[in-house]
Amino acid sequence: MFYRHVVNLLNRRGVTLEDIADIACDLQRPYNNKLKRKTCLQSVEQVLRKREVQHALITGVALDELAEHRTLPTPLQKMMEADEPLYGIDEILALSITNIYGTIGLTSFGYLDKTKKGVIRKLNNHNGKIHVFLDDLIAGIAAAASARIAHENADMDRYLADIQLHEQGPVE
Amino acid sequence: MFYRHVVNLLNRRGVTLEDIADIACDLQRPYNNKLKRKTCLQSVEQVLRKREVQHALITGVALDELAEHRTLPTPLQKMMEADEPLYGIDEILALSITNIYGTIGLTSFGYLDKTKKGVIRKLNNHNGKIHVFLDDLIAGIAAAASARIAHENADMDRYLADIQLHEQGPVE
Amino acid sequence: MFYRHVVNLLNRRGVTLEDIADIACDLQRPYNNKLKRKTCLQSVEQVLRKREVQHALITGVALDELAEHRTLPTPLQKMMEADEPLYGIDEILALSITNIYGTIGLTSFGYLDKTKKGVIRKLNNHNGKIHVFLDDLIAGIAAAASARIAHENADMDRYLADIQLHEQGPVE
Amino acid sequence: MFYRHVVNLLNRRGVTLEDIADIACDLQRPYNNKLKRKTCLQSVEQVLRKREVQHALITGVALDELAEHRTLPTPLQKMMEADEPLYGIDEILALSITNIYGTIGLTSFGYLDKTKKGVIRKLNNHNGKIHVFLDDLIAGIAAAASARIAHENADMDRYLADIQLHEQGPVE
Ligand SMILES: [Ca+2]
Ligand SMILES: [Ca+2]
Ligand SMILES: [Ca+2]
Ligand SMILES: [Ca+2]
Repeated sequence: MFYRHVVNLLNRRGVTLEDIADIACDLQRPYNNKLKRKTCLQSVEQVLRKREVQHALITGVALDELAEHRTLPTPLQKMMEADEPLYGIDEILALSITNIYGTIGLTSFGYLDKTKKGVIRKLNNHNGKIHVFLDDLIAGIAAAASARIAHENADMDRYLADIQLHEQGPVE
Repeated sequence: MFYRHVVNLLNRRGVTLEDIADIACDLQRPYNNKLKRKTCLQSVEQVLRKREVQHALITGVALDELAEHRTLPTPLQKMMEADEPLYGIDEILALSITNIYGTIGLTSFGYLDKTKKGVIRKLNNHNGKIHVFLDDLIAGIAAAASARIAHENADMDRYLADIQLHEQGPVE
Repeated sequence: MFYRHVVNLLNRRGVTLEDIADIACDLQRPYNNKLKRKTCLQSVEQVLRKREVQHALITGVALDELAEHRTLPTPLQKMMEADEPLYGIDEILALSITNIYGTIGLTSFGYLDKTKKGVIRKLNNHNGKIHVFLDDLIAGIAAAASARIAHENADMDRYLADIQLHEQGPVE
Repeated sequence: MFYRHVVNLLNRRGVTLEDIADIACDLQRPYNNKLKRKTCLQSVEQVLRKREVQHALITGVALDELAEHRTLPTPLQKMMEADEPLYGIDEILALSITNIYGTIGLTSFGYLDKTKKGVIRKLNNHNGKIHVFLDDLIAGIAAAASARIAHENADMDRYLADIQLHEQGPVE
């Protein structure tokens, strides 16, 4: 699939997997203070292996680069240059990434979108660069990688004894 | 806003508001056999006045047209030419339209996506034309217009007597 | 419909429309420093008139109250009592509220979910009270009311001159 | 986790994993005529191992059973008894299942919701039984299981040669 391609594409746009792993770690540390940076990096890599994530990145970065080359039609070109706040297609693509890991990823994405941490803050439209889609896609990937870790470290076993007790009892 | 612009854009791509109204009517008729075509057309017009709908159309049709001009980067250009079934960004944009009118629109969209009724069936990638995004966006608009009618004709009053009875009784 | 009913239901659970309006105002003020509290309150009222919002509130609060009465089946009862972080159905209901107003509401919801402002912070499971669903539903309503204001105050006209210029020119 | 629990819960409500596998197979066969029923069953099992799916099932079936016992508050009890078409919380829970497998699952869900195939058609509110949530949850699980198979059988390699060619060329 397109794993190597999207890693190259991120690098070309000035973003490393480590940048994204840092954000994912920041999101998850309050719940897990022993979390290792390597675990976060591996989670980012797993997220980038998902086909829907690859397609969202390929499409969003294409739109960013076409806007830099001034080859989009009006009014899309103008909205991209202005990073129009009411244009929401960038968030929609990013949400398709976080959706894969359920609602935890989704609320983290909203938080990152408001607080713009790490490399997300550095990605702004200036000096002819346009990152309308990329900032949201990075937030989406970091939120998804963080949610993935949360799901893997879940301790749900404490509910099990209770179910067993219950289901051996009379049929309800 | 971009209302006139998106109507022109649809016409340029070979789709009239009447085409979309026909699909919306077909979806809603089983629940309302007195439904007038004019009501469906007005509902389509209202959907097209929503900003999120306009932005989805502007972005999706730009991608279709850039693919026709062969100016998208690889592998996006190739996936658009092949109308790759596993590329889902077109459905994602369409779902952002139906979401506005709740889950009714969403299930109608899924149905249209499988059954490809009316003008949606005619929009295929051939003779150099590319409609990867447009077919889904049309389905999304028709589904949204149909859901809008369903919400307006709702008869929920029959539950009210029951609530009133209940809330005058003892505080629960 | 159920407007009066859901206002009563919120009050019964310790939440006023003014509490929600305060959160909606806080979200929107950075973009509009002249925003009046009354405008926020009216926006909350409009959100509560939407059928999907009423259904989400009616369902979520029913689950909260059934858990307080200890009448839910295992393991749902236990997860509600523990306010299990990986139980995400509360966020899912809340997201169905914010979806109606597009992606702006969605990112605000994620932010509120992490920062827990105003009345949302006060709603915790203690002293036999269970607010697993209500805290998210309040965040969803505040985020939706704030997004509604953003959409109404949008200034998109600056793009129009450009489109007119473009569309009178040669057909692209 | 709750895998055994949700299988028991489905059986108690009259649904076997084989019933769901049949629907998933029907959805996927047009694209893969060699698809084995066993593959579909395994995919259903994998979907039921996802935490979000388990939580949606546990919550939805609890509401169905509480409605059968007439212990829900008004107007929720009445809407569940009437299987009110404009009540959309059942679809919302089901969509949280299909979301995990991207947009393919989503459109299949919409199709099943309209066409009501297999066991979904048999699940109706009658003889005191209430299946407001279960019918949609089954459709969601079948759609997700089918989407899972589609993703696993994808042939995306044909795009790779093209990318390699492109990325060895001059930096764009
Ligand atoms: Ca952006
Ligand atoms: Ca398409
Ligand atoms: Ca909660
Ligand atoms: Ca149902």
